Amino acid sequence: MYMTQGVRRAAKLTPDEAAFVSDERSLTHAQFQDCVARLAGGLHELGLKTEDRVAMLSFNSDRYAIYYYGTFWVGGLVVPMNIRWAVPEHIYSINDSGARFLIVDDNFAEIAPEIAKQCSSIEFIIYAGGKSAPAGMLSFDDLIDNAQPAGDAFRNGEGLAGIFYTGGTTGFPKGVMLPHRAIWSSAMSFGAGAAALSATDRNLQAAPLFHIAGSAMLFAVTTFGGSHAIIPGFEASAYLRALEKRRPTISLLVPTMIGMLLQNPDLESTDTRRLTRMVYGASPISQAILTEAMAKMPETKFIHAYGQTELAPFVTLLGAEYHVLEGPKASKIQSVGLPVIATEVEVVDDEGREVPRGTVGEVRARGANNMAGYWNKPEQTAETMKDGWIHTGDGGYMDEDGFIYIVDRVKDMIITGAENVYSAEVENAVMQYPGLAECAVIGIPDDQWGEAVHAIAVPRDGAVPDADAIIAHCRERIAGFKCPRSVEIRNEPLPKSGAGKIQKFELRAPHWEGHERNVG
Amino acid sequence: MYMTQGVRRAAKLTPDEAAFVSDERSLTHAQFQDCVARLAGGLHELGLKTEDRVAMLSFNSDRYAIYYYGTFWVGGLVVPMNIRWAVPEHIYSINDSGARFLIVDDNFAEIAPEIAKQCSSIEFIIYAGGKSAPAGMLSFDDLIDNAQPAGDAFRNGEGLAGIFYTGGTTGFPKGVMLPHRAIWSSAMSFGAGAAALSATDRNLQAAPLFHIAGSAMLFAVTTFGGSHAIIPGFEASAYLRALEKRRPTISLLVPTMIGMLLQNPDLESTDTRRLTRMVYGASPISQAILTEAMAKMPETKFIHAYGQTELAPFVTLLGAEYHVLEGPKASKIQSVGLPVIATEVEVVDDEGREVPRGTVGEVRARGANNMAGYWNKPEQTAETMKDGWIHTGDGGYMDEDGFIYIVDRVKDMIITGAENVYSAEVENAVMQYPGLAECAVIGIPDDQWGEAVHAIAVPRDGAVPDADAIIAHCRERIAGFKCPRSVEIRNEPLPKSGAGKIQKFELRAPHWEGHERNVG
Repeated sequence: MYMTQGVRRAAKLTPDEAAFVSDERSLTHAQFQDCVARLAGGLHELGLKTEDRVAMLSFNSDRYAIYYYGTFWVGGLVVPMNIRWAVPEHIYSINDSGARFLIVDDNFAEIAPEIAKQCSSIEFIIYAGGKSAPAGMLSFDDLIDNAQPAGDAFRNGEGLAGIFYTGGTTGFPKGVMLPHRAIWSSAMSFGAGAAALSATDRNLQAAPLFHIAGSAMLFAVTTFGGSHAIIPGFEASAYLRALEKRRPTISLLVPTMIGMLLQNPDLESTDTRRLTRMVYGASPISQAILTEAMAKMPETKFIHAYGQTELAPFVTLLGAEYHVLEGPKASKIQSVGLPVIATEVEVVDDEGREVPRGTVGEVRARGANNMAGYWNKPEQTAETMKDGWIHTGDGGYMDEDGFIYIVDRVKDMIITGAENVYSAEVENAVMQYPGLAECAVIGIPDDQWGEAVHAIAVPRDGAVPDADAIIAHCRERIAGFKCPRSVEIRNEPLPKSGAGKIQKFELRAPHWEGHERNVG
Repeated sequence: MYMTQGVRRAAKLTPDEAAFVSDERSLTHAQFQDCVARLAGGLHELGLKTEDRVAMLSFNSDRYAIYYYGTFWVGGLVVPMNIRWAVPEHIYSINDSGARFLIVDDNFAEIAPEIAKQCSSIEFIIYAGGKSAPAGMLSFDDLIDNAQPAGDAFRNGEGLAGIFYTGGTTGFPKGVMLPHRAIWSSAMSFGAGAAALSATDRNLQAAPLFHIAGSAMLFAVTTFGGSHAIIPGFEASAYLRALEKRRPTISLLVPTMIGMLLQNPDLESTDTRRLTRMVYGASPISQAILTEAMAKMPETKFIHAYGQTELAPFVTLLGAEYHVLEGPKASKIQSVGLPVIATEVEVVDDEGREVPRGTVGEVRARGANNMAGYWNKPEQTAETMKDGWIHTGDGGYMDEDGFIYIVDRVKDMIITGAENVYSAEVENAVMQYPGLAECAVIGIPDDQWGEAVHAIAVPRDGAVPDADAIIAHCRERIAGFKCPRSVEIRNEPLPKSGAGKIQKFELRAPHWEGHERNVG
């Protein structure tokens, strides 16, 4: 329950073994602990008080790991920021969380002052890049070099570890408050379960560290005393090179990334045999991609992780033994697996009553990995957490053996790449375009991203909106990945239920004809 | 962190599979959860309030498991009582803990009223045996049959789970307060580490369930969704029969029990192949016994667990891969292994400074499995817990790879069978015998028990104490296993240091000549 325990334990047991390797730099376990304690010391010297928020906006690097653990060490709260957000979303999340510190890498050093100007809570911008710090910013490396190592604040249990933003159902992202207890339990459940982590594991970190699925690998492998090879982000060729050069034993990718690997001609000549486990999750995978990946990487065991930020994030795991296409276990590959150890899962109807096995309802989970709630959003917290259960917003059923199958998303959400896009948030942006009567945003099939965001807009009488202008309008307001890829202008009212609710399934139907909408 | 989570999770996933099997009865996971919720309901109907203490004095049975989890479920604190204690120790621990409920099996039904008479806190005696309840007692089975199932109180985190008594350094046993956080972390660390538990595991429970090493197996295997075969206590022939009949995959024995197995002629004809893991611990094992056991059970992996009640209980594990007699890892078999995942371990000098690798000092541990302290004993708590570290009282060193070797016991303690006997407690009893000037109690070599308790008593001028009478005198005051097996009457002062401290090593030396005092 001390997130920092894994750092200290590894520094004590194997101080001189590698903890982090990357093209930039390597750190042993002892060096990593020293950097963590010094960043904590530096933040303390800058005046950080317990529970102060420290935001980071950066691609992957070992500095991101130092940031997470240094903030935990000094008793602050991490606020990892989505690198794909638009500026208004950055500003929103900083103002919402009240972060005093903002850490940026080279990719975001330029926009940082612009963000800070609109965020009165920001007192320090810390530059965690490879050059000298721009004017007005402190240097991350200098802060570490010059600070006295701080003692561990030993935050644990119900003490908050951070605020992790996730797509909001209405408007801007919601901050998920995760206590140390939740992140640690999730890491332990993952490592003790299908992933079977040990101190000899090396994680190849390509999934973004700001995302809970990416950071979960950092936290789990660190908890078990293993090491990490880090690349700034996923790019198929760089990933394959790192597989050969860094000899990782485990990695987590989202299905879109696995799809890109399969399309890369270098895959065939890459030695993937040391990668004993590939974890995939954060969005549905198509059966075709999974089968091809299993065939092309025969020495690698595939593990499906299903989860969400609100559960820190692991809910279920489908172990390698169920990744078979024949025999009595073959049907299980359609499922998201069994609840992780820290969690119980059930499927309920609208009144919260458990439904019989095989019956579709809403999937909900309860356990030590529960979030504490949404930051400053008591109403949304009350809607999602009831009697200790986290309602996932996913429709599914449980089979006789306790395996969970996701068949629909109860929340009106599109998963594109590995990102959740709430239709309401996009509709909100679209409707700010002048001259619209109504609109609906749906997911339509896309070979690369699984689903693409599609908007259907109905003009007011006399207005003649322009589809491209609507997309450009959205780009100024919300992250690029949330913006519609296509807009249909329709000059008749959208189909509605008797209660006046837009019937999205009718809007989706023509697009999905001949496609299977895989929602697991 | 919810101890009860494992019960609910298994009841949901595999309701109809066996949770407990014994010669008396079998219970499925669904039935077990029902019994747990009903015992909780029954205790609630009797007026149990949160944190009320519920003591149990019984041999192993599935009722013991229902007791543990039923008490957790209703928010009470368990007080498992040592079945080998003498009546004054039973009375002491109940009065010390203030238990309102006392549950006894057939073996203790007769002395229960006598105990209750001297314990004003006891309001209910509950009979958990196989016959009808004696007059003045409630029936455990009726309580379960007639009660409404209670809702789970969901105690977790820092909430206390129970008071676990362990040998006291001065006089009576100390109550170790264990929070849910500690027991759960210890169970997770054990299952995620060398033991590699899963839901397909079946534990053969022969080690006593009142003892933290025994209950740790119950808690860990239940947390991971596995099942248990239970025998009332360890007896070599019964154990071997259960191995064949119940097909367990894992079991924990103390070294004395393993020694008894090896002496049993039925071992050779018993099919032990399904027992993939044998965990041993709670006292040092002799190299000879371990080597013979490994040879006679070649399909079974041996795992050494080192721990103590104050750490709920796992501190280190020595995995099967280090149970080898040749090759580069062969020296590790002398160690107690590596710290469990939830814990960091270090070796310190008298001032609490870490000593270099290879240097002997006191072993201390810190982690999520820390106790909350000793019940009602702030001074002893302060002596044992410093800066969050639990001082084990064991002398040892850490090698370059982080493995811990126990070489001496800093606390003046004898380990006989798997029981810790504090010399001071025995000396205290001996000195109540009339006519003694001083005495010292030491451990001397014993083939069956590892060490035997030996007293050296010096009479006052003119007194002529009788050795057998001293032993009989002790038997009325302390548990049989703590009483001296032999008493030497010495008519000269005991050897002392300049500071006046009895030099026990001088007293031990002649007994241990030609023996290796294995203290790991």
